[in-house]
Amino acid sequence: VFAPPNSNAETDIRQMVALAKEMLAGEQPCAIGVSFGGPVDHDRGLVHLSHHVPGWENIRLSSLLETKLSAPVLIDNDANVAALGEHRYGAGRGYQTLLYVTVSTGVGGGWIINGQPWRGHENMAGEIGHTVVDPQGPRCLCGKRGCVERFASGRYIAQDVREELSASPGKGEILRALVQDQIASIDTKLIAEAAARGDDLAIEALKTAARALGVGIGNAANLINPPLILLGGGVTKTGDIFWEGVRQGARMTSLPEIHFEIEPAGLGDDAPLWGAIALVENYLANSMTQSA
Amino acid sequence: VFAPPNSNAETDIRQMVALAKEMLAGEQPCAIGVSFGGPVDHDRGLVHLSHHVPGWENIRLSSLLETKLSAPVLIDNDANVAALGEHRYGAGRGYQTLLYVTVSTGVGGGWIINGQPWRGHENMAGEIGHTVVDPQGPRCLCGKRGCVERFASGRYIAQDVREELSASPGKGEILRALVQDQIASIDTKLIAEAAARGDDLAIEALKTAARALGVGIGNAANLINPPLILLGGGVTKTGDIFWEGVRQGARMTSLPEIHFEIEPAGLGDDAPLWGAIALVENYLANSMTQSA
Repeated sequence: VFAPPNSNAETDIRQMVALAKEMLAGEQPCAIGVSFGGPVDHDRGLVHLSHHVPGWENIRLSSLLETKLSAPVLIDNDANVAALGEHRYGAGRGYQTLLYVTVSTGVGGGWIINGQPWRGHENMAGEIGHTVVDPQGPRCLCGKRGCVERFASGRYIAQDVREELSASPGKGEILRALVQDQIASIDTKLIAEAAARGDDLAIEALKTAARALGVGIGNAANLINPPLILLGGGVTKTGDIFWEGVRQGARMTSLPEIHFEIEPAGLGDDAPLWGAIALVENYLANSMTQSA
Repeated sequence: VFAPPNSNAETDIRQMVALAKEMLAGEQPCAIGVSFGGPVDHDRGLVHLSHHVPGWENIRLSSLLETKLSAPVLIDNDANVAALGEHRYGAGRGYQTLLYVTVSTGVGGGWIINGQPWRGHENMAGEIGHTVVDPQGPRCLCGKRGCVERFASGRYIAQDVREELSASPGKGEILRALVQDQIASIDTKLIAEAAARGDDLAIEALKTAARALGVGIGNAANLINPPLILLGGGVTKTGDIFWEGVRQGARMTSLPEIHFEIEPAGLGDDAPLWGAIALVENYLANSMTQSA
């Protein structure tokens, strides 16, 4: 469910229920999987909050939907669900352990460890976007300095480029021409286009972003030693400069004895939908084991 | 088994066997656990190498000892084994997930995830010492810049202090007096003593080391969200300045929604010995399950 502007938790839930009923068309589901864009307590079926929509603080979404839809409801946050989707149906098939990273407006992540989602003791695992790669770096939204997200998220890549264009009149000629000096309109897509045409400033911006993400991934590899890291999200579509920068940054950060592949995620924006199915499958498999 | 100077793999193994036979005094063990100070392939019973003793490259230590001692032999590297020991018998009892970090000549680490050692796909997990906390920082032994180990290990704390004393004649008065200008004799114990007496340079050195380790721990908390981080090793005995710096660095690096305790390990130098017992217990429990 995409939350429209000015929505709140109540209208969102009403829309979720209406949409589910429409899709079910009178059929009785055995269980329902939900991917939520914010911190979630999977075991308790509780949404902690949404960073974008008001009213989601400590909402028992599972119970609410179970009452309305008369079926067990499993919820998890979108990065965890996407990781599970990629593991079960996407580019992570055949790997028992992987880190999925989404590089979009923000930078999020989810783990599969030993074939299962790894959520941490507070459902907060996977926050690679807020690992620090430069304690003296620029300030991030979260209050800290030099987070991966501060360098590699679409929001900050574009913001830094716009500021650099204003500060350095001699740089970014190709990018300036491309946007006809409408600096405010610049986003990562336009930056990628300018970089592909050889724009110095755009290339440098993507390299900086990619290297910071690479350091974060290399650190994750040193800590957990997964065989596979999958990257999804809009920023990963900015081209070879970005991918080379990420791989090089990760390679330079991890120990030489540590090996891993960094590959594009396979399911695109559908990863959470497939992951929600996998959540239900896991639930049904567990119930069968328990009743056996 | 402590390796004497000029030892090699062959003499080490001979000594291990002799010691084991002496301890067993004719009794037949059901299994033997071994903690090895270097990278080990636990599943294959293979030592990859020792960074200190020659001749250990790709030695099948399990098979060699099994032949000599007529019992199944389980091996793992010392940080993993210490983590397991702390989990089963030490300060980590009651926690299903923890990170154990040893801060000694180098900085190593081992994970317990869901009650079991987490080794990674190449037995290389837990390398928090070589996570990068400052990509522009000083060069580490491993070749990279700004690793946790480069700032927080005993070797580098002492090296940096000695260099700083030589470079800045006006600083470190208390430390200089303490060592009677024998700068080469300075180690972390002397630095801790000088810091406790108020030496400016020693205090700054411990703070720098502690903060870097704290950033590494905070990043690990963001990625894996464990409830507990245990610290062992000589450097952790340098006092409150160190512990406060580590906790502050970790707190400043992890997201506000992420909570964890940083506590002293409980078993000291015996952690790997207790962990070796736990390795054997795990093995025996598994064999019983399989034969049941």
